Parts: sequence; C-alpha cells; structure tokens
Amino acid sequence: MGSTSDLPVMEKAAALLNEFKIPFEINALSAHRTPREVEQFASNAQKNGIEVIIAAAGMAAHLPGVIASMTSLPVIGVPVNASLDGMDALLAIVQMPPGIPVATVGINASLNAAILAVQILAVGNPGLQEELAGYKENLKKKIVEANEQLAKVKYEYKTN
Amino acid sequence: MGSTSDLPVMEKAAALLNEFKIPFEINALSAHRTPREVEQFASNAQKNGIEVIIAAAGMAAHLPGVIASMTSLPVIGVPVNASLDGMDALLAIVQMPPGIPVATVGINASLNAAILAVQILAVGNPGLQEELAGYKENLKKKIVEANEQLAKVKYEYKTN
Amino acid sequence: MGSTSDLPVMEKAAALLNEFKIPFEINALSAHRTPREVEQFASNAQKNGIEVIIAAAGMAAHLPGVIASMTSLPVIGVPVNASLDGMDALLAIVQMPPGIPVATVGINASLNAAILAVQILAVGNPGLQEELAGYKENLKKKIVEANEQLAKVKYEYKTN
Amino acid sequence: MGSTSDLPVMEKAAALLNEFKIPFEINALSAHRTPREVEQFASNAQKNGIEVIIAAAGMAAHLPGVIASMTSLPVIGVPVNASLDGMDALLAIVQMPPGIPVATVGINASLNAAILAVQILAVGNPGLQEELAGYKENLKKKIVEANEQLAKVKYEYKTN
Amino acid sequence: MGSTSDLPVMEKAAALLNEFKIPFEINALSAHRTPREVEQFASNAQKNGIEVIIAAAGMAAHLPGVIASMTSLPVIGVPVNASLDGMDALLAIVQMPPGIPVATVGINASLNAAILAVQILAVGNPGLQEELAGYKENLKKKIVEANEQLAKVKYEYKTN
Amino acid sequence: MGSTSDLPVMEKAAALLNEFKIPFEINALSAHRTPREVEQFASNAQKNGIEVIIAAAGMAAHLPGVIASMTSLPVIGVPVNASLDGMDALLAIVQMPPGIPVATVGINASLNAAILAVQILAVGNPGLQEELAGYKENLKKKIVEANEQLAKVKYEYKTN
Amino acid sequence: MGSTSDLPVMEKAAALLNEFKIPFEINALSAHRTPREVEQFASNAQKNGIEVIIAAAGMAAHLPGVIASMTSLPVIGVPVNASLDGMDALLAIVQMPPGIPVATVGINASLNAAILAVQILAVGNPGLQEELAGYKENLKKKIVEANEQLAKVKYEYKTN
Amino acid sequence: MGSTSDLPVMEKAAALLNEFKIPFEINALSAHRTPREVEQFASNAQKNGIEVIIAAAGMAAHLPGVIASMTSLPVIGVPVNASLDGMDALLAIVQMPPGIPVATVGINASLNAAILAVQILAVGNPGLQEELAGYKENLKKKIVEANEQLAKVKYEYKTN
Repeated sequence: MGSTSDLPVMEKAAALLNEFKIPFEINALSAHRTPREVEQFASNAQKNGIEVIIAAAGMAAHLPGVIASMTSLPVIGVPVNASLDGMDALLAIVQMPPGIPVATVGINASLNAAILAVQILAVGNPGLQEELAGYKENLKKKIVEANEQLAKVKYEYKTN
Repeated sequence: MGSTSDLPVMEKAAALLNEFKIPFEINALSAHRTPREVEQFASNAQKNGIEVIIAAAGMAAHLPGVIASMTSLPVIGVPVNASLDGMDALLAIVQMPPGIPVATVGINASLNAAILAVQILAVGNPGLQEELAGYKENLKKKIVEANEQLAKVKYEYKTN
Repeated sequence: MGSTSDLPVMEKAAALLNEFKIPFEINALSAHRTPREVEQFASNAQKNGIEVIIAAAGMAAHLPGVIASMTSLPVIGVPVNASLDGMDALLAIVQMPPGIPVATVGINASLNAAILAVQILAVGNPGLQEELAGYKENLKKKIVEANEQLAKVKYEYKTN
Repeated sequence: MGSTSDLPVMEKAAALLNEFKIPFEINALSAHRTPREVEQFASNAQKNGIEVIIAAAGMAAHLPGVIASMTSLPVIGVPVNASLDGMDALLAIVQMPPGIPVATVGINASLNAAILAVQILAVGNPGLQEELAGYKENLKKKIVEANEQLAKVKYEYKTN
Repeated sequence: MGSTSDLPVMEKAAALLNEFKIPFEINALSAHRTPREVEQFASNAQKNGIEVIIAAAGMAAHLPGVIASMTSLPVIGVPVNASLDGMDALLAIVQMPPGIPVATVGINASLNAAILAVQILAVGNPGLQEELAGYKENLKKKIVEANEQLAKVKYEYKTN
Repeated sequence: MGSTSDLPVMEKAAALLNEFKIPFEINALSAHRTPREVEQFASNAQKNGIEVIIAAAGMAAHLPGVIASMTSLPVIGVPVNASLDGMDALLAIVQMPPGIPVATVGINASLNAAILAVQILAVGNPGLQEELAGYKENLKKKIVEANEQLAKVKYEYKTN
Repeated sequence: MGSTSDLPVMEKAAALLNEFKIPFEINALSAHRTPREVEQFASNAQKNGIEVIIAAAGMAAHLPGVIASMTSLPVIGVPVNASLDGMDALLAIVQMPPGIPVATVGINASLNAAILAVQILAVGNPGLQEELAGYKENLKKKIVEANEQLAKVKYEYKTN
Repeated sequence: MGSTSDLPVMEKAAALLNEFKIPFEINALSAHRTPREVEQFASNAQKNGIEVIIAAAGMAAHLPGVIASMTSLPVIGVPVNASLDGMDALLAIVQMPPGIPVATVGINASLNAAILAVQILAVGNPGLQEELAGYKENLKKKIVEANEQLAKVKYEYKTN
C-alpha cells in the first residue's frame, strides 16, 4: 500500500488471506516517495516467489500501475478514498494504457481484492477452488438467514 | 460479451490470445435478455475446463458481476463505452459488493483484459511468464524506437 | 432488497404500503450472493400472485435489472446510496439495455417507489385511484399550512 | 414530449406500442412554453381514459415531473440527451421529491419506456402478459442466434 | 421556496433584503405538491406588484423553471443542496430550454440571490445603486482589515 | 465575450436584442489577456449608460465574475462549451462567493441571456413587459402548431 | 488567498517555507471583493521583489487566474475545497485559456504548492536544490521506517 | 510525453519554446512501458543540465508524477485528452500526494505548459521576463484588434 494510513482499509484483505491460509506480506511503499524501493520490490517479486500483488493507493494513485509496469505478475489495484469520494484514485488505477493492465476492484474494496487474489491462485488448484466455493456458500447463508428473519418482521408490516 | 455489437471492441482481446496461443471461445450472452444461458455458461465454466472469464458489457453493465456471482473463477470485466463515455459501465462493473470481485480494466480496454488473463494463467507457468516478459520487451522497443526518431525531429525544433 | 442493511432506507416504502393496505412481502435477496434464490423469486413472482416488484440495491446495483430480466412484471428500482453519493447505483439501475426496463426512482427514494407501485396497481382500479388523490391532497395541505405559518414569520422580516 | 425535436428519439416507443396494438397519442407539450396546455392535458388524462403517460424531455427536463404533479396516473420519464450527455435531463427527472414519483428509464431509452408502459397495462391482464413473454422470448432468440454465428467466427481466431 | 426545510438556506436572503429595506414575502410553494398554488402565484405576481422572484429548490428542482414559464418577471433560481452536493438542483435549474431563462446563482447561495434581486431593482434607481456600492465597499473593508491583521500574523511565520 | 471565437454562440443574443429594439454593443474583452480593458469597461459601464451586462466565456471562465466584481450592474453569465461539455465554464461562473452574484444561464444559452436582459430592463417598464408577453405567446404558438401536426402523424402510428 | 477562511488550509505552506527559510508574505485578497487591491498586488509583485506567487481560492476560484493575467511571474494555484469537493475550484483554476497558465496543485494541497515554489526558486540555485533533495530523503525515511514496523505487524497476520 | 501519439498536442509547446529560443529536447518515454528509461531520464535530468521538465500523458497519466518522484526539478504536467474528456488524466496528474507536487496545466494545454516553463526560467532572469511581457502584450493586441473589428460588426446588429 502507498502509505500506512491505508492500513485500516487494507486490514480486511489481510484477514481474508489468513482465513484461506495464504502466506502474504504487507509493505508500505510509495510510488512517489520511495520509487526505487517500489522498483526493487516489483522487479524482484517474481523471483522472490510472489505470485499475485495487491496494490492500494489514493488520490493520483500510481502505485498499482507503477508496479504493473515492472513485473509480469497479475497486479490487483484498490482505489482508496482519500479525496473526491475515491473517483480520482479509481480513474488513476483503472484507466491504464494498452499493454499494462491493473485488475481494479471497487473503491476501498480490499476484501474483494483479497478474494480475487485467492481466485487467481486457485486457477489449477482444485483444493483452493473448493474452499472458495465454501466461502461463497457462507455468504449466501447469511443472506438466506437474514431473509428468514425478515419473513417474521414483514408480518408486522402486513397486520398493521 | 453482452451483445455482438461489442465485437469490434473485443477483437483485440481475441488477437492477443491468439498471439499467445491461448485457446478461447467467444460468446454473446446477455445478462438481461438470456439470463438462463448466462447461468448455464457460468455455472458450468469450471467443469468445462475454463480457467479465466473475460466479460464485456456497456451501460448498466451487469454481465461481469452476474457471471462472477455464479462461479469461483476469476472474472475480468471490460466496461464498454455505449453511453456516458463508459462511466455507467465502469461503475456498474467495478463497484461490486463485498464477496464477489470483478477484475476491472479500463473503458474499452479489451487488450488489457486479455493480457491480464494471460498473466493469471501464467501464475505457476514459467513458460508463459517468459512469453509475457518478451511481449513487454516488445512494447518497450516500440517506444524506444519512437524516441530515437523523435531525437531527429527535435533538432528541427531546436534549430528554428 | 439486496441486503438487510438497506432496511432503514426501505422502511418508508413498507409504511406507505401499509397506509394503502397493499399486501406485500420484504425479501433480502442478493443478485451476487444468492443468484439462484433471486432467479426462483423472480421466475415465480407472477404465478405467486405478485403484481409489482420493488428492488433496492447499492453500488454496482444489479438486483433490479437481474429481476427484470426474469419476469414480465413491472420492476421498480431504488438506487441506494452506499458509495459515490449513490451515483453508481443510479447508473447501474437506470441505464438498462433495450428490452428490459427498470422503472427507476431517485436515490434512496423508497417512499416514491411505493407510491409508484400503488399508482401502477391503481390502473383500472377506481377505488385505489381515489385513495391516491386523497394522499396527494394531504401532501398539498402540509405545504399550504406551512405557507400560512410563513406568512406570520415573514412579517418579522419585513418590520426589521 | 417537450418538443417535436424529440420525435426521432420517441419513434421507437410508438413502433413498440403499435406492435402490441396499444392505442396511444403523441403530443408535443412544453412544461416551459405551454404550461397551461400541459396542465389541461395532465389534469384531464385520467377522465379522458389515459392509463399510463410517457413524458420525454431534455436539459432541465421538467415535463415528466410537472405532469406527475397533476395526475395520479403512473408517469414514465425519458431523459433526452440534448446536452451534457443527458445527465442534466436524467437528474432533473429521476430526483423527484417525496410524494411525486416519476418512473425513469435510461437516457434516450424510449423503447424501454414503451415496454414499461405495456408491463404496467399488463398488470391483471393475462393476455398482454403472454404477449410480453413472447416479446422477451424473441429478444433472447436474437442473442442465441448471434451466439451460434459467433461459434463459427471464433474458430478463425483459434486456428490463427 | 419549495419547502419550509429550505428556510435555513434562505434566511440570508431575507436578512439582506431587510438590510436594503426591500419589501418582500416568503412562500413555501412546491412545483410538485401544490402546482396550482404555484400557478396562481406566478400568473398573478406581476399584477400583484411583484418585480423580481427568487425561487429556491433542491433535487429535481422544478420550482424556478415552472414559475419562469408563467410570468415575464425575472426569476432568480437558488439550487439547494439536498442530494448529490446540489449538482442535481443546479442542472435542473440552470439548463432551461431556449425562451425561458432562470437567473441561476450558486448552490445554496441565497445571499447572492438577494443581492442580484437588489441589482435588478436598482436598474434605473440611482439611490439603490448607491446603496449597493456602499454594500460592496463594506465587503472590501472586511477583506482589507483581515489582510492588515494577517500582516502581523505573517511575521510570526517569518521569524520562526 | 472573452474571445471572438465565442461570436457564433452569442449571435442569437444579438438577434433577440434587435428583435426587441434594445440598443447594445458587443465587445471581445478577455479577463486574462486584457484585464485592464475589462476593468475600464466594467468600472465605467454604469456612467456610460449601460444597464445590464451579458458576459460569455469558456473553460476557467472568469470574465463574468471579474466584471461583476467591478460594477453594481446586474451581470448575466453565459458558460461557453469550449471543453468538458461546458461544465468547467458553468462552475467557474455560477459558484461565485457571497457578495458578488452572477446571473447564470445554461451552457451556450445566449438566447436566454438576452431574454433575461430584456426581463430585467422590463422591470418597471410596462411597454417592454407587454412585448415580452407577446414573445412568449409566439413560443407557445409554435408548440401548439407542432402538436396539431403531430395529431395527424400519430394516426399513422395507430392504424399500423 | 481569497479569504482568511482559507488560512487553515494554507498554514502548511507557511510552515514549509519557514522550514526552507524562504521569506514570504501572506495576503487575503479577493479577486471579487477587492479587485483593485489584487491588481495593485499583482502588477507590482515583480518590482517588489516577489519571485513566485501562490494563490489559493475556492468555489468559482478566480484569484490565481486573475493574478496570472497581471504578472509574468509564475503563479501556483491551490483549489480550496469549499463546495462540490473542490471540483469547481479545481476546474476554475486549471482550465486557463491559452497564454495565461496557472501551475495548479491538488485540492487543498498547500504543502505541495509551497514545495513547488521552492523547486522553482531552486532552478539555478544548487544550495536550495540540495536542501530539496534532503527533504525528499526525509519523506522516504518515514515510509521506510513505517514499512519496517509493518514487517513485525504482518507476522501476526501470518501466524493467525 | 508518454507516447508519440501525444505529439500533435505537444507541438505548440515546442513552437513556443523555439519562439523564446529556449533549447529543449522531446522524448517519448512511457511510465508504464519503459519505466527504467523514465528513471534514467528523471534521475539524471538535473546533472544533464535540464532545468524544467514538461510531462504529458493521457488516461491513468502517471508520467508526470513518476518523474516528479525521481527529481527535485519542477515538473509541469499536461493532461492529454485520450478518454473521458481528459478528466482521468487531469485527476491522475494533479491530485499528487503531499511531498511530490506536479505543476498541472489545463487539459491538452501544451502551450500553457511551455509558457509556464519560460516563466520559471525567467525567475531571476530580467531579459527573459521582458520577453514574456512582450509576449503578453501581443496576446492583448489581438484581442484589442478583434474588439475594434467587432465595433463595426455590431453596428449591423443595431441598425437591423
């Protein structure tokens, strides 16, 4: 992420990766303040055994694109809402020029970034795919249970 | 893609996948007009051997999100500019709720969608990673050559 | 609605329907997390005696459009403000492709969604039309009374 | 509609209504230039046997809302793109205050306005509902056929 | 104004008009909920001795335009921020069709609406024009005094 | 106006003023390139017998606000679409700070600017008010005639 | 700056300039309320020994452009967020017509405005350039230290 | 500039620099496709005698910010309109994080970028300042002449 101030946004990603027991590391690396550290990280990521990179940044958010320009690994970009409701970060991340894609998720959507990372790692990994299916089943259950509770609530509405 | 009218936008993706000799299929499936065909496609994609899905749609672009809700495969979303400069499609694709990510690329950026698909397939595939590195080297060469030609052009500016 | 977190927004709709003694049910059904439940609901709505559907969702709000794709009943869409002031939800609901309309109301405008539902049910129902006329008369009265109170307030301004 | 210049946009609505053999009339009535004609039309619509109103307007599009304020009939609003890509008309139509809904469709989406009108008229009209189901089946067929043609096209991509 | 909830925004206009001893009246009249009251007010304004009208409204703000359509008096429109930071109200007021202008001021800018009304009344009224010049001189004085105080503040900066 | 390139936009204003036989002058004065000429014009406008000023400008459109800061006459601002669909000019003109209003009309709406100028001049001028009423009557006639022609056109639709 | 209410935003600029021991003065000068004071300031800036001007303003922010029109010194513009998230101020400052540039920084970005001023003054001043390099080195250190602390934090994530 | 496709936009900058006899070089360097070439250019710019850098880029425009992160020289950013009317490029350039400013000019405003560069070089260079004053005088003359021609044109309006 571009700054430790993005940590509260990114904690959900860490929690999700732990849930799936995916090893990961978190770095604060600024495309603008530590460009050479970013380059070192991105250039060596593949040979250091990294398989997917999640990059979060706000405002004129260059970090995901700069990393993507220095590696062939898939880079997931998380636009952080630091100004303009996050629209500046969204456009600065998603509108990459031809040749250098960033897989962009929603504004502040660090959880989705982590799920997308797991989905990418699960390509050709049936065990992980099964875990993902279970995770989605859980999401569904919460909605179904909520719906069942609503069934009681709505009676109140009807009888009024 | 949501409609055959998106074909001109998506042809670059097909060409790129051919360049990398990645087998693929193109479907016109509308989240709104053929919802059951979409469900059949998405629900069976994994068991049919599909590993990554690219979904393109314009306006209230639901196709990528609807597919993502029915599979655990990574889904790449391409917002197509059919109205409002593509901003409606971008927001309708990227702003997915927690739990169901879509890996969004730029407006009309079908080439980047295909490169991202190759990057995902290349995770754990050193041969494909090498090919990607070669592809990026080529992009760089074009810029470097253009720059060399500019060096001559700029003299004209200087001597004026 | 797409999530129970939309309940505070939608309560005004429930209250209005009770006021008109229109029987209704509330469901939490997510286009993305429970796609098959949504399909079951939408496909069977007509034969279950439902005549109008109100669907509320935020962000990349697919629920109204997905339901509209699976039924010929009129579907009213309520964009919920969950991000970007609700602009993402508005565009993701209103900009439907040709063939599948969603009757969209304003951002968070659940009350208007319910009134629109009553207006639709009142087509060919003179009793309900009369009730609607009475409801509108009441709205007018509140403004007229407020205006009468202002007439006194404004004197203070004038004499100052 | 607010002006005869909106006729090219609205012709699709007329064609669709003819297809369903729904009798209708087209009027050019400007909320701003002929306010009293609008009032006469709207106030008398119900007693003149009108059941649904489609109102199209561009820019500071007041026509749908003004009509809705003078009748209890359902009013469908079509934002016409006359400036700012139609965003001004969309917001001026959809963001109605509590009590006076306008059923808004997409920018220039006159076809969808007409389909929505048919859906509203079909409430409690099984014959019309069946026709609507047939109409949707046709939309689906076109996509399915397009997809079959794509199946051949895509082979060319694969063998390249 | 469209609703008594706009009163806190409009109070500055009342205070300014009192400062200039311009007689005025405040009305809460909704273009949507009390269309006939609006028409009566607007149609009779000129013969009732009104010379300028200030109309404030939020969301799909039709009040200024509806009044302007029924009178030849100058109508000043104040977009009230009730949603979308007031952008919906601004566009719904300022983007009037050819023939029916509304003199629009900034979002929530009721003070400027009142000053503009005084400027209009001052055309051909040298006494009022002089008062306006005095008012502007006062605005300038406040800035000039603030600047003089800053001159001391800034020393602190310099000596640090 | 800020530049002679704005002349095609402003010609409708000139034609309207001629129609009402209002004497006027057109100047190209740039707030940025000829600031002192703007100041001379604005500071002396009142004593030169000018009663209303129409100022048109595009992009970071400062001309209307700069003129308004130097005179107590009413200043009407016309945002010219030179970039960003005219949104930059609209905001740069309408969002004036407290104390210095600009009466803003729609993007490129020079005709409305001229009508507004006539409305302002007509305050306290019954003859001009009558002419304005006649002008509005004409606008209405065109719509009413168009509507009568539509009545024939629509039969074609019905009989198909 | 356009108003003393901008002081909280601009204090970071003052602090940075003190850090670099750059002499400066702060003025509250309104393009709209004190146009002649602005002209005096801008016209005489160069002969008064000023080398760079930072101008901050909100809403229809004219101050930077107006100053730039009256001097050949570089003018740095700071859009202040007073409405619309600062988008009105940004566009009113950055979209200057050909011939009169304003060096615009981000919304509320007074610190960056001051750094840019130092960078401009450092052109041809090796001592100041060295100080700037040291300042950037410090920014980098903070990120590097934060990253080292994260290295410990992330272990907790991994072992969970 | 980020690509040779930006050359038509940037030619005005080259012409202006030639007019002022400022030596310059043009490079096509992509922040995303040739990141190491960008780094080499930016890191060595100062020691290679470069004093000001103009960087132009479109879409997710990272080039200006990436260069600014690697040098203490002033960097002028030109947002190029390649999509979304240039709003993506504008935000991706101007909204830089604290510490790394980019002096942003308007969308496609390469001429203004070059003038700003001259203004920066003219700090402490009286000869260049004089030339700038002459350049501005010329801009003014064109407007003044245009205004004189308008004086004749406007008579036609008046006598009609």
